Amino acid sequence: MSKIISLLTDFGNKDGYVGVLKGVIYNICNNVNIVDLFHDIKPQNILSASWLLANNYKYFPEGTIFVCVVDPGVGSERKKIIVKSSDYFFIAPDNGLLTTILMESNLQTIVSIENKQYWLAEISNTFHGRDIFAPVAAHLANGVDILEYGPEIDLKSLIMIDTPEPEVVKNVCSGTIVHIDRFGNIITNISKNLIRTKNIKITFKNTTILGLKETYSSVKEKELLAIIGSNGYLELSCNCGKINEITNVEVGDKIFLEFLDDFRT
Amino acid sequence: MSKIISLLTDFGNKDGYVGVLKGVIYNICNNVNIVDLFHDIKPQNILSASWLLANNYKYFPEGTIFVCVVDPGVGSERKKIIVKSSDYFFIAPDNGLLTTILMESNLQTIVSIENKQYWLAEISNTFHGRDIFAPVAAHLANGVDILEYGPEIDLKSLIMIDTPEPEVVKNVCSGTIVHIDRFGNIITNISKNLIRTKNIKITFKNTTILGLKETYSSVKEKELLAIIGSNGYLELSCNCGKINEITNVEVGDKIFLEFLDDFRT
Amino acid sequence: MSKIISLLTDFGNKDGYVGVLKGVIYNICNNVNIVDLFHDIKPQNILSASWLLANNYKYFPEGTIFVCVVDPGVGSERKKIIVKSSDYFFIAPDNGLLTTILMESNLQTIVSIENKQYWLAEISNTFHGRDIFAPVAAHLANGVDILEYGPEIDLKSLIMIDTPEPEVVKNVCSGTIVHIDRFGNIITNISKNLIRTKNIKITFKNTTILGLKETYSSVKEKELLAIIGSNGYLELSCNCGKINEITNVEVGDKIFLEFLDDFRT
Repeated sequence: MSKIISLLTDFGNKDGYVGVLKGVIYNICNNVNIVDLFHDIKPQNILSASWLLANNYKYFPEGTIFVCVVDPGVGSERKKIIVKSSDYFFIAPDNGLLTTILMESNLQTIVSIENKQYWLAEISNTFHGRDIFAPVAAHLANGVDILEYGPEIDLKSLIMIDTPEPEVVKNVCSGTIVHIDRFGNIITNISKNLIRTKNIKITFKNTTILGLKETYSSVKEKELLAIIGSNGYLELSCNCGKINEITNVEVGDKIFLEFLDDFRT
Repeated sequence: MSKIISLLTDFGNKDGYVGVLKGVIYNICNNVNIVDLFHDIKPQNILSASWLLANNYKYFPEGTIFVCVVDPGVGSERKKIIVKSSDYFFIAPDNGLLTTILMESNLQTIVSIENKQYWLAEISNTFHGRDIFAPVAAHLANGVDILEYGPEIDLKSLIMIDTPEPEVVKNVCSGTIVHIDRFGNIITNISKNLIRTKNIKITFKNTTILGLKETYSSVKEKELLAIIGSNGYLELSCNCGKINEITNVEVGDKIFLEFLDDFRT
Repeated sequence: MSKIISLLTDFGNKDGYVGVLKGVIYNICNNVNIVDLFHDIKPQNILSASWLLANNYKYFPEGTIFVCVVDPGVGSERKKIIVKSSDYFFIAPDNGLLTTILMESNLQTIVSIENKQYWLAEISNTFHGRDIFAPVAAHLANGVDILEYGPEIDLKSLIMIDTPEPEVVKNVCSGTIVHIDRFGNIITNISKNLIRTKNIKITFKNTTILGLKETYSSVKEKELLAIIGSNGYLELSCNCGKINEITNVEVGDKIFLEFLDDFRT
């Protein structure tokens, strides 16, 4: 049975940066399926990458090795780490990209990648994805033990993104836009567990949306709506249109959610 | 021998939507080759997707399973179907995406996907690609019989796109632009079988092109030309340029083809 | 052990052109791993494609078959070739795309692709990637000998791109911009071997950069810097920004590098 290595980067598809990672991996481990998770996110957008990883990794087979390269500090003194949970491996620069993973309770081992035996022979200062992360992933897929790559390190020594948690005060919940997808869907960090009623009023920028809907097509074409997205968080959308172009929001902007028929205080 | 699952969506490559489909598939079926057919078409463009599928599927090995997710009605009451022809499987929402496939003569079975045993345990309202279509494809690749997924349904109950057929009146053939590709090539629905002579005059918008050419380089750089495209349909191109930017056409626009030396009436 | 076929084209990801290549390949050879090297380069940009291939192919396993389709002359009389070096196969139109490969010393065999037995049954004038290059690659992966595809031809008969070599006059080295990547990094053809000192002054357009740095983060955010890129050539970058948008340069533009503390003459 083939191992899976899943790649998530900000490399795009026009320069061969993703392709060469795969060449390096296959050169070390032939019996592996390589899956692109995403590559076209905005360069250096660690927050978005972290969010997307956190919401997708659990759909992959046990043992999947995630190679995560959004790495503006490449070549500097920042650490390079392997994180092993009970089910998965994550390889990444220590820059906050793995924040959500590191907050899980089932972490087993964290290693600082230092043993050059598993790197390419020649190391550039600008492309550790190719020279370090990809070969380490391939050796992991070959079965080389995680403790071979370097010393164990403590969770507390790692860098975490300071992600804003949603806040509830009386009947208003305030959240943050954490991602805007290709369809223009605005994804917030307000979990469905926080939403007490479908009778809601959502406010952001100069826009107001009333009510929580079940499907895009429950409103007319080009109408705005609020919906629980596929990962269980509140999303704001436009049926067959791009809400973000209409309302001009950005990742990091605040949104406010008022519960209209809930009077807990 | 590995089965092939081919994915065609409007998901793009920036949000992990395609990657997670692959995670789901490999989680159920390890011995499969997954091939991206396309993902970057304009969102919700069912016509273009249907056209591209129809012109490409026959190049794939027998037994290939096509997972087709251009699905603006996701979560609504629209059916989800598997169509089996003598050689292939097609999994899609019932929204016209499979129109051309459904007009083929060698259909064997059409099933409405209803048996939740083969879906993910938790189903979102906005991402049936991940929760229903991908797992069904993986179980098909594992050999689970098509009749396991739900009841057989009748072809006549399905939604078809109302595609405009080319019309010939005297020595003029009128057709429709069905796709514009990355190179700016304008692809029409006028089959080479309808073109009686190379001595033709093509008219659309404010543009006229004379004659049918064999290769792009048979005209000078930046010159317009008409050619039979790789799928056997009339295409309008610009040698080393983008004709669509010059002439400002769109999918759905009409074009007219006059046979200059053919006087059948 | 599976063979690798690596694809590099200007086809993008919106029209199914890359997907259908894979369908054709798997239809002939099931036991192969297909790796996308790049597809989103600017259409018909043979120089950039040639540069990217030259800098990446050595990271792939021995025996990898590279299918290179940037082919504005498709359908014309231009030759179609297979080049075998001691370690790799390269399949491409004879239009200069393989220039750097052809200048290597370890070439073994060059063949003109002429034997239609290994092509698809029907050949279009506009898509030799699908009809000729992909099936030939698949048969190569199946082990069909290179001499089966057509007659051997001489290196001297092939088309080479006239690439501008860097020139050193006294303490100034002049080079050329050969690629601009997704991050806006400006990649030049000045090899690190030509750079005598870190005390340099770089001039291009209205811009001057002083000194050679080790990492992006050794300057402040949005500051310009010069660095040795991951393939060993001088690159000009902006820490967490896009230098090409600031300075408005293009592939082909000249840059000048002055050695400030080297007085060899």
